[in-house]
Amino acid sequence: MKVEIISIGDELLIGQTVNTNATWLGAEFSLRGGSVHHTTVIRDVKADIIEAIDRAFTRVDVIIVTGGLGPTKDDITKHTLCEYFNTELVVNEEVLGRLHAFFKARGKGVLEVNTKQAEMPENARVLKNDMGTASGMWFDHKDKVLISLPGVPYEMKHLMTDRAFPLLIEQFDMKTIYHRTLQTQGIGESYLAERIEDIETDIRNNGFGLAYLPSASQVRLRISSERSELNKTKIEGYLRQIEDRLPQYVFGREQDRLSEVIGKWMIKHQKTIGTVESCTGGAIASEIVSSSGSSKYFFGSLVTYSYELKSKLVGVNMDDIQKDGAVSESVVRQMAEGGRATLGVDYCIAASGIAGPNGGTEDKPVGTVWIGIAGPENTSAQKFLFGDQRDRNIERTVLTALNLLRCEVLKINK
Amino acid sequence: MKVEIISIGDELLIGQTVNTNATWLGAEFSLRGGSVHHTTVIRDVKADIIEAIDRAFTRVDVIIVTGGLGPTKDDITKHTLCEYFNTELVVNEEVLGRLHAFFKARGKGVLEVNTKQAEMPENARVLKNDMGTASGMWFDHKDKVLISLPGVPYEMKHLMTDRAFPLLIEQFDMKTIYHRTLQTQGIGESYLAERIEDIETDIRNNGFGLAYLPSASQVRLRISSERSELNKTKIEGYLRQIEDRLPQYVFGREQDRLSEVIGKWMIKHQKTIGTVESCTGGAIASEIVSSSGSSKYFFGSLVTYSYELKSKLVGVNMDDIQKDGAVSESVVRQMAEGGRATLGVDYCIAASGIAGPNGGTEDKPVGTVWIGIAGPENTSAQKFLFGDQRDRNIERTVLTALNLLRCEVLKINK
Repeated sequence: MKVEIISIGDELLIGQTVNTNATWLGAEFSLRGGSVHHTTVIRDVKADIIEAIDRAFTRVDVIIVTGGLGPTKDDITKHTLCEYFNTELVVNEEVLGRLHAFFKARGKGVLEVNTKQAEMPENARVLKNDMGTASGMWFDHKDKVLISLPGVPYEMKHLMTDRAFPLLIEQFDMKTIYHRTLQTQGIGESYLAERIEDIETDIRNNGFGLAYLPSASQVRLRISSERSELNKTKIEGYLRQIEDRLPQYVFGREQDRLSEVIGKWMIKHQKTIGTVESCTGGAIASEIVSSSGSSKYFFGSLVTYSYELKSKLVGVNMDDIQKDGAVSESVVRQMAEGGRATLGVDYCIAASGIAGPNGGTEDKPVGTVWIGIAGPENTSAQKFLFGDQRDRNIERTVLTALNLLRCEVLKINK
Repeated sequence: MKVEIISIGDELLIGQTVNTNATWLGAEFSLRGGSVHHTTVIRDVKADIIEAIDRAFTRVDVIIVTGGLGPTKDDITKHTLCEYFNTELVVNEEVLGRLHAFFKARGKGVLEVNTKQAEMPENARVLKNDMGTASGMWFDHKDKVLISLPGVPYEMKHLMTDRAFPLLIEQFDMKTIYHRTLQTQGIGESYLAERIEDIETDIRNNGFGLAYLPSASQVRLRISSERSELNKTKIEGYLRQIEDRLPQYVFGREQDRLSEVIGKWMIKHQKTIGTVESCTGGAIASEIVSSSGSSKYFFGSLVTYSYELKSKLVGVNMDDIQKDGAVSESVVRQMAEGGRATLGVDYCIAASGIAGPNGGTEDKPVGTVWIGIAGPENTSAQKFLFGDQRDRNIERTVLTALNLLRCEVLKINK
């Protein structure tokens, strides 16, 4: 099944909104055996919408249109679809009833702009929206299908998951590419390629695909093939080979997050963690807490941004701060050990660095970060030199610190 | 100047990477007077690349191609471009020299995969990349231009900003739509539309555009017109009208972030802030720290995820936690006031809630959040009921808390 995603909205084209809908749809279709061949973003303009649909029907089986169904006046999608599919809008009583119930449940009255949302194209199948006021629409077009959905991500996801996919599975044969992903942290694309060159050659000689997908301080490695039981087994073999060779970098598979991998270990071993943070300002803690169930192993965190709080809350020696600076091995070790005691946890991560863009010196340029890990057996500390962009430095510090903790608890040499 | 963005990469289509490059390019062209009419995402397949370029040249003046220039073997873009523009790859000595210097500066040797990156199409203008190993390429095609850039976001941004835009400005007349944006927090799209219905009618009667751009707990409001001094003045008038009517919701303009707005106020009034967080796990603090210069007013934060730390670090009465629960007015007030004292700050934000997906009760369902603000004059606390998704609840708590603090310091009634 070939799929094209058409996202409508000036806000996407002028860069005010990131098109996360296309990302989510791509991942979902991929998992369910559909294959997204094109994603197109177009303006909220009738001619452009019609041209994009025309073109998409020449090359794919299923078109997903997102956006252009909000209650406010900037939307023209519904009228254009009526024209394209030669039908007209009629009030759908069931949808109208749901709209009234939706607003009543929230203690609010139905606004006039919302009642227009009960007008649906006569020949479309209505996809019931339990999370918002814009219904989805399913149009049959010869053997092909166009599905129109609101652009609000959680409404779009609900309509795909609970309404559209069950219907698509009935109508289409969904099988295609199989792929598996390894997640790495702390090694660049070129160096990773160099370290697994022989395995990569083997993978390609087998006719499989291998892609390096870099983002800030992480590279994902994706192996793909035609879907078959034999290929699945072969790919599993390659994944294990790479995991065995580079355990200090490979932390998980598919959509695994470092924080989840650590969380699972902590639960299994009944250990607890906390953080003492300076330059990251709580970002390591909030990454840990992004995993549900983190209250089982995460006790808390001290964000000691000022010198005074480093001393007062975790007992860092003020003389050491004066002598070595706040971004130093001695301070980060004291932060980790002091935090471990104050928070009463088994493992404590500490990070102190110069995130930038200001505050760098010749000795300690912007991007210099010390990370410490205090555990039941010992305390370790390591210095890193990242780049000159504040947000990337913070992100890299968070991920590097979590990977150091992972290596520490798994006793992997970095 | 009409622009089309073509992003190449299976990883974008199968949803493993979000296409933030297209977002950034859309915003930049928009600011500089270019107009992105289409964004297309295609596979790493020769025929698809050629078809997309052919099509794009029929409708725009400038094509930006991102992706497909990495050092590893999954890239075919450069060869396809050579074929399209009827040229061939030759080693560029200047690029090769830079590659050697690039790796030497990082204490590393040049890998063989990297030396291939010195091969450039003979008839392309090379765009020098100071931040990575993949050069950009500029192809002239009649009066039109195609620019090919690596997909790594910070390299792409550098090449556009420092290399491509200066050349584009020489060659094209860059003028078009003018738009300004207001940022709101805490009011839904329909309710916002209802509150400014008369202003909206006025805006539209003037022939201007108005768009509601919703994301989690924020709606941006964008007014657009043809660029002229008169229109600029009129739009400024509308912006002020809306700001005056809804000061409790409108917190800024354009790309303003709540944390920056608050930071500016704190610097101006020489006040300081800290946070005591439970369900948000440091996310409020890390949002504050995301602004550079935050060390001037942000002292630190206590993430008291466990009951014990709420009592030990900020002195919340254990009896109150037992009696009222950790998600309660009494506890969040004590967290805010205790944090203010412990951290030694003028203002302290506290948040305690049930982020989900587990932990809800009949009285306190998932999404229940108490937010407290302790200031020099008084302490306030407010209860919110968000949704059932963990990540959204955390995000909404962060933004709602920051907006409450903004209203508190600006003495705006919520």
